[in-house]
Parts: sequence; C-alpha cells; structure tokens
Amino acid sequence: YIKNKINACKKTGIYSICEKYDSNISESELIHNIHILNKNPLIHGILVQLPLPKHINAIKIIESISSNKDVDGYSIINSGKLMSDLPGFRPCTSYGCIKMIKSTGININGKHAVIIGRSNIVGKPMALLLLKYNATVTVCHSKTKNIKNYTKQADIIITAVGKPNIITGNMIKIGSIIIDVGINRDINNKIRGDVDFSSVLPIAGFISPVPGGVGPMTIAMLLINTVESAEKS
Amino acid sequence: YIKNKINACKKTGIYSICEKYDSNISESELIHNIHILNKNPLIHGILVQLPLPKHINAIKIIESISSNKDVDGYSIINSGKLMSDLPGFRPCTSYGCIKMIKSTGININGKHAVIIGRSNIVGKPMALLLLKYNATVTVCHSKTKNIKNYTKQADIIITAVGKPNIITGNMIKIGSIIIDVGINRDINNKIRGDVDFSSVLPIAGFISPVPGGVGPMTIAMLLINTVESAEKS
Repeated sequence: YIKNKINACKKTGIYSICEKYDSNISESELIHNIHILNKNPLIHGILVQLPLPKHINAIKIIESISSNKDVDGYSIINSGKLMSDLPGFRPCTSYGCIKMIKSTGININGKHAVIIGRSNIVGKPMALLLLKYNATVTVCHSKTKNIKNYTKQADIIITAVGKPNIITGNMIKIGSIIIDVGINRDINNKIRGDVDFSSVLPIAGFISPVPGGVGPMTIAMLLINTVESAEKS
Repeated sequence: YIKNKINACKKTGIYSICEKYDSNISESELIHNIHILNKNPLIHGILVQLPLPKHINAIKIIESISSNKDVDGYSIINSGKLMSDLPGFRPCTSYGCIKMIKSTGININGKHAVIIGRSNIVGKPMALLLLKYNATVTVCHSKTKNIKNYTKQADIIITAVGKPNIITGNMIKIGSIIIDVGINRDINNKIRGDVDFSSVLPIAGFISPVPGGVGPMTIAMLLINTVESAEKS
C-alpha cells in the first residue's frame, strides 16, 4: 500500500497522510494499522473512507478509531456525546449545514426545521443539532405520508435523500431556507442534488447549490474538527 | 451505609440490593463501589438514583457503570448505540411509551408523532425510537412557537414537560393517542400529569393516566432490560 504520501495544506497548516490498502486486506490488519495511527501523536484525525469491502465489518473499523481522533464524528461515543449534549466531534455534514443556515443571518431559535431523511450520518445528527439551536424539528422519511404537508410549513428544509426532485417549488413556503445534502447524477451524468433547483429558486429565500454547497462545507468542518483535535491534544 | 439489603421479586425472579450511602460520600468512593458492582457476576443491572449531591459529578458516575449493566440506558455508549441503531439498553421511559402506544393496536408506521420536551432522558430518545418505528416525528419544546399548531396535526402526542395543563382538549385531533410522561403536584398535593385529563379525555382515542401510566411502565422496562442483561451475561 501507499504509505507516507504526505500532503500539506498551506491554508490550514494541516498535513495529511493517505494510506491506501489492497481491497483484500484483512479486518484485523486494518484495525492494527488504525491502532498505530491512534498512538501516533502527530496524527489528530483519522478518517476511514467508506464503503469498505464486504469481508470487513465497517462498525468494528469505525469503533477501532480512538474517539479523540474520530473527526468524522460517526463513532458510538461521539454519537452518544451529541445525544447527551456533551462536547465531542459533531458529524461534519450536519455541522456544516448548521453553519450554512447561520450564514444566512436568520436566527434558528423557534424556527420550524423539516429534515427529509433519517440516516445515522445526516438526518439524525441534523435533528439533534437543530434542537440544540432551539429549532422545532420534524423528521420525514420514506414512510412519511404527504411530505408536502410538512415542507409547506417549514422555515428551513434539509434534504438528505439521494433522489432528484424530492423538493419542488410548490412544496415550499415563500422565503424558506433550503439546504440540499443530496448527491445524484442526472441522465447527462452531471451531479445534482435532491432539490428541483429551477422551480425552488424563485420561491426560496436561500438555497444551497449542488455541487458546491454542502460538499465543500463538509470538508471544511472536517478540517475544523481536526484543528480542534490538534489544539486539544 | 446499608448494604446487602436484599429484596426478591417473585414474579420476575429478580433479586435486588439497595445500597444507600451517606450524602457526603466522596465521588471516588462512589465510583469505587460501582466498580465493585460492575465486577460482581451476580449483578446484571445497576441504577444510580438521581439527583446526586452537588459535590458529585453525575455524568462521571453514570459513565462509571459498565455499559453492559447500564439498564437505565443513559450512558454515552448506550445513547450512541440508540443513535446508531445498534443493540443496547434503551432508556426505560421512552421504551415504555413505545410499548404503550403499540398496546393500543395502532400501527406506528407513517403516523405523525409530536413530542413535547427535548430532554436527554425522554424527548430525544423518544424521537429516535419513534423514527425507528417509522413515525414522522416532530419535537417541540420551550422555544416552539404555537405548540397547538403541531399538536393539532398529531396522531400521537407524547408530553414530557413537567407542567400541568400543557395539553388541553382544544389542542388535539379527534382520536389521537396521548402519552403523558409528566409528573406534577397540584394544589392539593395530588400527583398529576402534563395533560388536562378531563378536557382531553372526550377527544382523544387513548390517553395514559397519571399516576398509573408511564411510571409503572418505566419500571417494567427496567425489569425487562435487567432480565435481558442477565440472559446475555
């Protein structure tokens, strides 16, 4: 595997190592390698790129990362800390969405936020973070009847479904904030979000583009988590 | 302190020890005692009665309980497991509410559940459990504007606020299920819930009484968690 391929980021002062393994690496060897990184005082954040090959248990791998270096924030301990309102790494995507919503200048306090999607990675942490910022929060998903009934009432909509045109202009309230976490490819192989951008644009107050919206914000939050981890160490 | 005061429950086959300490016990001594219980193979569940004296950090104490014996389900690890959809002890009150809702015979799938209160102990775990059962979930709280607007739309309402008359008959939909987690004392020192029982009763489909509703169910779920813990050990 490629080891010690060091990349340095001048803007953030972070350097990174990319370790690429053969897809037939054993689970125990992968865990062993993570343990070495856990012990390395020069490393403050560890990110395992998912999905993993089928013979490897992803949960075991994520849990083998030290919770002090789990800058992705997906481990059981960091999820539990988010749930219990204790300091810990917040999942980057939902953390980035909060920053985007705040950047519009609105006060989240008392607003009705509707999340579409209930994944462990986006929907659920998004709900907990928005509650922390005093939003009233509704979580919709594949089993929700009449999603439009909910989105029509929302001041803020976060969609994390992975299907194009989940949200169209007639489903939203005038002036609402639309954050699009979806990543889909259209028939021309172009990247698009969950939102029907053209019909939503004239009605929404703010709308995050795909590509160029939540994606780069997620990476920015990953860097923030890593810098905070380094500061704490 | 009183030690080895053994109580046995014939119905469940569970025996219990009640350890009462002086209120000036040190944090480290309390943790030491919990560690002894953690190691005792005859003990399958440990419950620390809150609140604790001010000089003791409650989070530290809860975290000192082995996650395999945390039958209350409040530890960071069990919260994280709930959040990540992994097996673990579910917080007894919200777990009991699910059982009560299911006992009405309704299918939670696709129903709109409105939770009032966002505590770590009830509101947040309740939201995650209801999502798991495919409800569309809204969480309201002290910063929610116009709670009636949400409760009027709910098929299921769970209130965990701790203030009497938070829910009145004019705030609910005909036939809805009302689960009252609140415990309050009225001017006659009688125990009452959050719900204005008399105005809600003729409109609701089901309503849980206080006392005699969520309280005993919480204890029942604690026993279930303890039995499951014993079976697993």
